[in-house]
Parts: sequence; structure tokens; C-alpha cells
Amino acid sequence: MRISELGRRAGIPVATIKYYQREGLLPPGVSTAPRRADYGEVHLHRLRLIRTLREVGGLEIERVRRVIAAIDADDVTRHDLFGVTARALEPIPPVDEPPVDVRIARGEVDEFVEQRGWQVRADAASRRELADALVALRRLGRDYGTEIFGPYADAADRMAAWEVRTIPAGVEPGVAVERMVVGTIIFERILNALRRMAQEHHSGEVLSRSSG
Amino acid sequence: MRISELGRRAGIPVATIKYYQREGLLPPGVSTAPRRADYGEVHLHRLRLIRTLREVGGLEIERVRRVIAAIDADDVTRHDLFGVTARALEPIPPVDEPPVDVRIARGEVDEFVEQRGWQVRADAASRRELADALVALRRLGRDYGTEIFGPYADAADRMAAWEVRTIPAGVEPGVAVERMVVGTIIFERILNALRRMAQEHHSGEVLSRSSG
Repeated sequence: MRISELGRRAGIPVATIKYYQREGLLPPGVSTAPRRADYGEVHLHRLRLIRTLREVGGLEIERVRRVIAAIDADDVTRHDLFGVTARALEPIPPVDEPPVDVRIARGEVDEFVEQRGWQVRADAASRRELADALVALRRLGRDYGTEIFGPYADAADRMAAWEVRTIPAGVEPGVAVERMVVGTIIFERILNALRRMAQEHHSGEVLSRSSG
Repeated sequence: MRISELGRRAGIPVATIKYYQREGLLPPGVSTAPRRADYGEVHLHRLRLIRTLREVGGLEIERVRRVIAAIDADDVTRHDLFGVTARALEPIPPVDEPPVDVRIARGEVDEFVEQRGWQVRADAASRRELADALVALRRLGRDYGTEIFGPYADAADRMAAWEVRTIPAGVEPGVAVERMVVGTIIFERILNALRRMAQEHHSGEVLSRSSG
């Protein structure tokens, strides 16, 4: 197909597609004449993936680049797969020395992860995010410890065990990375939307009872 | 305290504090002299709340304004509380007519919510978000139905039932709204971080087994 049709089917302006090509996010089309190229389903799929990363995942272009690089890498062993994916999705760590309350919270999170028996990279962004959340709660006057994570960690554990089982064995690394990235981003949105629904439902029940 | 100390303690530049005041997000300080005002713990708490909404929740200033308005409203009955909070946190709905596949997915989500027996507003943003996620998956070639929501809905249900029980009875509406907003935003981050940790842990286990 021509670039105009590619853009129409992917829902992305042609100028943006050309920008993605210059950035190396989209492989070139097959030249059919000077200044004319032909695109196929591979290009359409790649554009839909980029759009999902941008619009659903809210990823800035630099992180999109890292995710695409992880998908295109052909030297990823199955064992490295998750680390590569997780790192590509993570924000770049801040270089500033964190304030004291953040440092304390990070120590508590590390202890929580260890007690839980979870194998998580020492530099995983998820550790910093948990600590930041704990600090935000405390600064707002809610003096919680990591025991507040309990019910969420139990739910996360059940979900992750189920999710990992759904990755088919024997798929190519690039395909597996894409599945993991899409799964992480889209199912995060699904989970958050369902949680807000469930909160609305349960709050309605409790509040009607107490005001009725 | 003076505005400079307020800024230092809240971690917010004085120019930003003045901007929040002009926008009506922060109540004025007590005038102690011409062009000088005194601020207290109420102001510090409000600034920390705004910072959480902005940095942890990623809320643009217009949504921060709606959340603050909900917290400051003194005519909220306990029964309306959740609706007010949920609406304040939601993005403004798009006015464009959605494409066919999105319309179909919205119908499926409505059916899913009804079958589940959840009481959720007909115009809740969470319904649209679920439909958008389903469409994103399908456009990437994963032809799932709403049955894919099952394990996440079960987890969300358990978490929400637990969360709603933690709101103390008899608190003022403004305090309850703030608790709900902060709970929704910060615990969403906590849940997402824990899910990524659990995925990393379980993937590592499965991948080492299959490659070893």
C-alpha cells in the first residue's frame, strides 16, 4: 500500500509516519519508483504498536525508541527477555540525591520485597515508585508502613502468575517482547479502569447503607 | 510562615504557589502587612495535595481544579460523595463520534458490567477506557472478548471491597473526598508498581525453567 493508505489505516498522519521513519522506529518500505515506496502489514502493525505505546501507555518518544529497539534486537535470549522489556518500559532514573524520607522509604521497600521473596532487579523503577508513593502518603499525614501494600501485593501476585502462563512457549524473542510490552501497558489500563468501577460499586453500596 | 518557607517545605517554587493562588486552588494567607501574608499547616497540606495530584496522578491543572472544588464544596451529601470524586478525577469525555469498532466494544463493556452486577454510572470514564483497551488489543491482532477482564475484575473487586471499608465513618465530606482522591491515585501507582514486580518475579521463574 502507499504511505497515504498506511496512514489512513493506522490513524496516523503521513508527516508523523515520516518522522517515525527518520527516527528509525519504522522499517523503510519497498521502493517501487523514485520517491515512492510500498508498505505492508508489518508496517501497519508497527505503527499500531507505536500508537498504543504513545496513546495508551503515554510513553514519550525516547521510551518508544527503547521498546522498539528491544523488539528488534535479535540477540535477546529467552532468559534476558523480561529484563530487557522491563528496562525499556521504565523511566530513566533521576540522578539527584533523594531527600532523607525517600531514602528511608526505599530501604523499607527493599526489605518488603525481600520478605515477600520476590526476585526483582535491585535498580528496578518499581522499587522507586513504591517508595515515592509511600512518601507521598506520609507527607499528606497518612503514616503508613509497607504493611499497607499487603492486599495489593497479593492481588498483583495472583494476576502476574496468571499472566505469565499466557505467554506461549517457543515464540520468537521479538514477538514475546511485544506481547509483554503490550500486556503490561494495556492490562495496566484495564486493571485501573476495573478498580475504579469496583470502587464506585462498593462505595455506592456502603454509602447508601450508612446514609439510608 | 512566610511564602518562601511554605515553598521550601512543600517543595514548590514561590512563583508556582502564586500561580495556584491566582487560579483559586490555594486559600489566601493571613495579611500581616501590605504585600506580606502568613501561611499555616492548612496551606502546606493543600500544596502537598496539589503536588501529589500533579506529580503522582499526572493530572493537568484543569482536573486539579475540579478535585479541589469537590473537596471545598460544602453541599456534598455522603451519598453523592463517590460520584463527585469520581467525576472530578475523570478526563473530559471526547465529543467526536467514535469509530465503529469502539462503539461495538463499548456495548460489550456495558454488557460485561451489567452481568457482573456492578453499579457504575452510565457515563463513567472507566467504561470508555475499558472499551479503548479492548480495541487497542484487537487492532494489534489479539482478538479478545470481555472474558479477558475476568481475573482483573476479580482482583479489583477484592481490593475495592477492602478499600471502601478503610474509609472511617462520620468524617467530614471534604476530608472523605480527599481520602478517596489520594487513595485512588496513590494506590493505583502502588498497585501498578507491585504488579510489575510480581511480573518480573514470575517471568524470571518461568523463563529460567524453560531455558534451563
